[in-house]
Amino acid sequence: MTTKLIAVYTTVATRADAQVLAKAIIEQRLAACAQLMEIESIYAWQGEVNQEAEWRIIFKTTSERYPDLLKTLQQLHPYQLPQICGTDLPTVSVEYSKWIRDNILPK
Amino acid sequence: MTTKLIAVYTTVATRADAQVLAKAIIEQRLAACAQLMEIESIYAWQGEVNQEAEWRIIFKTTSERYPDLLKTLQQLHPYQLPQICGTDLPTVSVEYSKWIRDNILPK
Amino acid sequence: MTTKLIAVYTTVATRADAQVLAKAIIEQRLAACAQLMEIESIYAWQGEVNQEAEWRIIFKTTSERYPDLLKTLQQLHPYQLPQICGTDLPTVSVEYSKWIRDNILPK
Repeated sequence: MTTKLIAVYTTVATRADAQVLAKAIIEQRLAACAQLMEIESIYAWQGEVNQEAEWRIIFKTTSERYPDLLKTLQQLHPYQLPQICGTDLPTVSVEYSKWIRDNILPK
Repeated sequence: MTTKLIAVYTTVATRADAQVLAKAIIEQRLAACAQLMEIESIYAWQGEVNQEAEWRIIFKTTSERYPDLLKTLQQLHPYQLPQICGTDLPTVSVEYSKWIRDNILPK
Repeated sequence: MTTKLIAVYTTVATRADAQVLAKAIIEQRLAACAQLMEIESIYAWQGEVNQEAEWRIIFKTTSERYPDLLKTLQQLHPYQLPQICGTDLPTVSVEYSKWIRDNILPK
């Protein structure tokens, strides 16, 4: 069964945190790329509505590499309870799919 | 059948509109969090290509809560024909999944 | 079988490139709208970890129109190996679904 391509999302507090986390994940070939973007988060926390600047990271990887990505994200993430969720990418060009797979194979 | 975690997307014209709409949705526990980001939208409208600054909102909720979220978004949204669409989130950490579900249960 | 609504993602180097590509796609009715956002990309390339400012584009279209969208993106895209991938949008309001479909029908 061919492994699925997936996008995995997390957030951190600052751009610097996002860069450090993204580089670590890509250097370990757990994702082929990371897209960082500035966001504002509004969320429920212990009965209150909080509002904070954050940075969102989108990783592209495969369902096969996800368990290792998840474990490493949980080890490296600055938050106690980080957002870690993802979508399937059933639509993908042949070339881009190959590029992702080539860049997450363990060396 | 366990309810699915989903991400629901909409857009509004300004940051202030995005904050007001996001807070209302989260206070009513229709979504656990909202991520706001500045975008530029290019779209077809009555045969013309329009270009406008907008703010995109990503809500995290469940398929079970979606009908109420949809109804409330349609009531509160400043646009006549708002973007309301969403993706499934089949990949999610156990802890984050629990956090979302805990924060959208009706009180 | 009803065609699926999908979101298709790509990235380019600058805002101007994003605007040119997005307008061309929408004028050819291959997508109903495009959302452009500034990002920072960190990715593996020939064994090195690269870091660059980019612009991400999210197109909304249907699975039926995707083959033409893919072909045109590959023709017009400034990159040799562009990101072209997408997610399904199983959750969508009736009105927004209609708007997308109405705006991508060949004239």
